Amino acid sequence: MGSLVESGVHQSVLALVENSEELAQQVLRNEDRINRFEVEIDEMAVRLLALQQPMARDLRLITAAIKINTDLERMGDLAVNIVERSIALMHRPRVKPLIDIPQMARTVESMVRKSLDAFVKREPELARSVLLSDDVVDRLRDSIHNELVEFMQNDPSIIPQAIDLILVARHLERIADHATNIAEDTLFLVKGIDVRHHLEPNI
Amino acid sequence: MGSLVESGVHQSVLALVENSEELAQQVLRNEDRINRFEVEIDEMAVRLLALQQPMARDLRLITAAIKINTDLERMGDLAVNIVERSIALMHRPRVKPLIDIPQMARTVESMVRKSLDAFVKREPELARSVLLSDDVVDRLRDSIHNELVEFMQNDPSIIPQAIDLILVARHLERIADHATNIAEDTLFLVKGIDVRHHLEPNI
Repeated sequence: MGSLVESGVHQSVLALVENSEELAQQVLRNEDRINRFEVEIDEMAVRLLALQQPMARDLRLITAAIKINTDLERMGDLAVNIVERSIALMHRPRVKPLIDIPQMARTVESMVRKSLDAFVKREPELARSVLLSDDVVDRLRDSIHNELVEFMQNDPSIIPQAIDLILVARHLERIADHATNIAEDTLFLVKGIDVRHHLEPNI
Repeated sequence: MGSLVESGVHQSVLALVENSEELAQQVLRNEDRINRFEVEIDEMAVRLLALQQPMARDLRLITAAIKINTDLERMGDLAVNIVERSIALMHRPRVKPLIDIPQMARTVESMVRKSLDAFVKREPELARSVLLSDDVVDRLRDSIHNELVEFMQNDPSIIPQAIDLILVARHLERIADHATNIAEDTLFLVKGIDVRHHLEPNI
């Protein structure tokens, strides 16, 4: 499920960059498989809880899996949202060369990959590195946003396309938020510390 | 936690409509309490799973609670996002009378209330009514979006404010999505049917 989501995120931005209807369709087809995985994994988790009555660490693993499952499904949805914007943009003139959005996408993709690796291999250091990237992504989103507002003000005819690009940047940022959730759940699983909402003194 | 989220959503839009810094601050203060609830409820769920080893229906209730907990926390975040836009909008001239956003907000707030009521009282009919409202919200978001794009094209000086309003509509739509998730989890809990992703023949 994680690999499907990873490649969904990658292909959704590639569909935008390359104006590729085929890649866009592939992301839409993948979503259906991701959705089925979500339902299956939930069922599996409840079955394990019921039949094995797991304790302590195993219990934490299963509750983490239930949460990560939800995050992955939402990331799949967001890749579909990016594809919807990409399709809308395909038939309209380009606003500007796409340089910063692919750059933001690379950062987000690496967060997704690292958060899943951290969970699978139980590597707290890798999970922490994901948390640190979240600010970078927020800054990239803001700079994309501000630049596009300037473009719109100079040429109102490109407003619809520019808004679509602003939304792509927002979708990418939210994918990064979900990767952060996975990293936080991993830290809780491995170290038993809850880093959500910065309730603990330092991470 | 549900009531805090409900009033957070309500106050975030009221802060926008009434240009009220005080209401905005109240939403920001509430978020902290919502975040603490999220952590406590998760801990409580894991403790119940470990100590009581619940079976069948109780187990479904606890796993539903873990998921709904995540949705509520995200809704609290989205109320904060609306407040951030409201604060940005306070010091700038109004784009247009705010009629459709409060209307959209009322629909979304009623979905939030109904989804929580449906969960607490285990009322599948109420849960189903939430699922039906989701399309209404999507249509309202699209009409707000299209109207604002027109405004921007006629008067590029209002682009930053108009984008803020488009984002408020998107945040409201996502709150509605989370209410839909809660309704789906409630249907699964009460009826044992999984209505996510329309995998079942009819709901």
